[in-house]
Amino acid sequence: MTEDPTGPAAQPDDDRLRIVYELACERDEDAFARAREIAFEQTVELPEACVPAALQRAVVARLEGMERLDKRQWRATLSYAAEIVGGEVPQLLNVLFGNVSLLDGVRVVDVGWPRSLIAALPGPAFGIEGIRRLLPQADGRALLCTALKPIGLTSRELGTLAGRFARGGVDIIKDDHGLANQGTAPFAERVARCQQEVRSAGEETGAESLYLPHLTGPLDELPARLDVLRREGVRGALVSPFVLGLDVLRCLAKTSGLVLLAHPTWSGTLFGRQHGIAQEVVFGDLLRLLGADGVIYVNAGGRFPIEVEVCEAINARLRRPLDGVRPAFPVAGGGVKVESLPRWAARYGPDTIFLVGGSLYLQQNLEEASRQLIQALAWQGAPARAGRG
Amino acid sequence: MTEDPTGPAAQPDDDRLRIVYELACERDEDAFARAREIAFEQTVELPEACVPAALQRAVVARLEGMERLDKRQWRATLSYAAEIVGGEVPQLLNVLFGNVSLLDGVRVVDVGWPRSLIAALPGPAFGIEGIRRLLPQADGRALLCTALKPIGLTSRELGTLAGRFARGGVDIIKDDHGLANQGTAPFAERVARCQQEVRSAGEETGAESLYLPHLTGPLDELPARLDVLRREGVRGALVSPFVLGLDVLRCLAKTSGLVLLAHPTWSGTLFGRQHGIAQEVVFGDLLRLLGADGVIYVNAGGRFPIEVEVCEAINARLRRPLDGVRPAFPVAGGGVKVESLPRWAARYGPDTIFLVGGSLYLQQNLEEASRQLIQALAWQGAPARAGRG
Repeated sequence: MTEDPTGPAAQPDDDRLRIVYELACERDEDAFARAREIAFEQTVELPEACVPAALQRAVVARLEGMERLDKRQWRATLSYAAEIVGGEVPQLLNVLFGNVSLLDGVRVVDVGWPRSLIAALPGPAFGIEGIRRLLPQADGRALLCTALKPIGLTSRELGTLAGRFARGGVDIIKDDHGLANQGTAPFAERVARCQQEVRSAGEETGAESLYLPHLTGPLDELPARLDVLRREGVRGALVSPFVLGLDVLRCLAKTSGLVLLAHPTWSGTLFGRQHGIAQEVVFGDLLRLLGADGVIYVNAGGRFPIEVEVCEAINARLRRPLDGVRPAFPVAGGGVKVESLPRWAARYGPDTIFLVGGSLYLQQNLEEASRQLIQALAWQGAPARAGRG
Repeated sequence: MTEDPTGPAAQPDDDRLRIVYELACERDEDAFARAREIAFEQTVELPEACVPAALQRAVVARLEGMERLDKRQWRATLSYAAEIVGGEVPQLLNVLFGNVSLLDGVRVVDVGWPRSLIAALPGPAFGIEGIRRLLPQADGRALLCTALKPIGLTSRELGTLAGRFARGGVDIIKDDHGLANQGTAPFAERVARCQQEVRSAGEETGAESLYLPHLTGPLDELPARLDVLRREGVRGALVSPFVLGLDVLRCLAKTSGLVLLAHPTWSGTLFGRQHGIAQEVVFGDLLRLLGADGVIYVNAGGRFPIEVEVCEAINARLRRPLDGVRPAFPVAGGGVKVESLPRWAARYGPDTIFLVGGSLYLQQNLEEASRQLIQALAWQGAPARAGRG
């Protein structure tokens, strides 16, 4: 993990993609052999003898640094010419972790993104500021988000839940990521019902929540589902880029006009201790560059194993300056509890969204419990706002 | 790993999705708690107290079996109502390994696919038989495939390589998966040149090879790239479903009319020893159901760590009877060597494609070396053909 998220790898001066790997190695000489293996595997994918010298210089990754971490672990920095990525997401994924995913003991811990690639990707269309403009009621404080669930409820029942949360002042009400187009609550019917309930509640309270339906489904049906969102006046959506395809997120950010919250389902296979990609690179950089306005990750102390330092690294990356890309909201979820929310809000600061699901559902009165959570966030926000002013 | 690929999980009589997990557990009581946790996490994603009894029956996964494997490992079988998947791939991925991907020590080792889901997915449009119809010259023997590479060559240079391999009789000539739309060999130009060279060679030899360009790129540009393939008379494509999105494979199988070979780039993160999905489920079942006519995996004894038993399990699954879904070709790649090809062909049998890349490039004369490999496969094929007749 990178200690300093704005460190040297973050913004290279030349137009190369820099990838920092942690390599598990039995012996020191293995480390250099492995770095070299990756440099070839991720580019020419041929033995050295088959690659003309000019292509070795132009295409094979360059070893830019080797650092010994401990007896069996090295950190290697390789750089790749931006032209081999060519600004396309599938090929970016190939270079980032394509064939090396099939090896063992290779972990991407940091990436320096070339300016040409950053320019080719949309980044968040709204980001933190854009979401705040849609939710003036949340000014100066962290935002509260909850999920409509479970699968199996009817559209009417989900709508009723949405209305309760909205009247309680929950800022963002999203579908559960398991809600697709099941017969119990078909997409178009569910979206219409929930959006209507949230709008009615907003008219009552004077502050409208943001309803984010789960925009998913067969790729060839996404345009029709986008039409449903437009017809119903929905302003954003939950997307699951790791099951839909990461390039779907980029497409939606570029063209949909929707606030996009990214869900981490299926992403966990990337996060091996010795093999994979660091969470702060995936959630903190990659999803932001692809266009997520808010990025859900599983928070420490919840249902999933993750260290708080990793969460803070994700938060820092999503908010850091990055070549004009809008900062995106970290969305801490995966088991944030009602009783621990004030503590997390104090730690993570106001530019955070807290996703409270099951723990909120366990409360007797959803509307009243929501109201209390918003008050707790406002109380935390007050000193933060003063500190920023 | 499943010993018998046509075992009880393969074809349930009711319409439920059965998932067999291996769970890493410190204590026996943990195993039951973990199975229960998965049953809720993958469906209602709420504490039990919040889920009405009727929904617990209809939606929460059912525990169908628990088997102790050793001191710290259990095998649990859960079944899910097919309706919660609803026939859509992104939601299938959610149920298969969505949120549990974010846990530790959960490995999917077998899946029983409900008939309604199998019916909703296209399966291979060609499969083994369809590919053999396009390549009558390979009748009765295993097929040889190679890759055009490296990145950095011009379209003309790649075309020249394609021509050499085609004249040497290589059955399938695919682009390297790193070839996208880079300036050195832009997609349309490269496809035109390579297809033309392969066609000319076929006119000379009387047996045309199958050229499979790498169909990749931004999602919004795939239709234009498909038009290029149609215009050039290309009959198939290499696709990388793990970077493009798994549903892209399904869409292409359903609508493109192309032979589709699936590349495993990015898939390796799924294959943790204690966490992930077994390779035979991913390559042997999932990609076949989604519509791959041939599935590339990394073979044992090559550049990547994998056991030969896993390869054989993949082969068996791709070829097994499965509710009318066409069998697909296993494509053994990732470091198959010229000198070991006859041994692999004897072991894996004629309904296999061997992808030989770097080792073929190391030979002095590509055309002659290709011809010798084809002869070696034909020699292996002869007894097998006799055995089948």
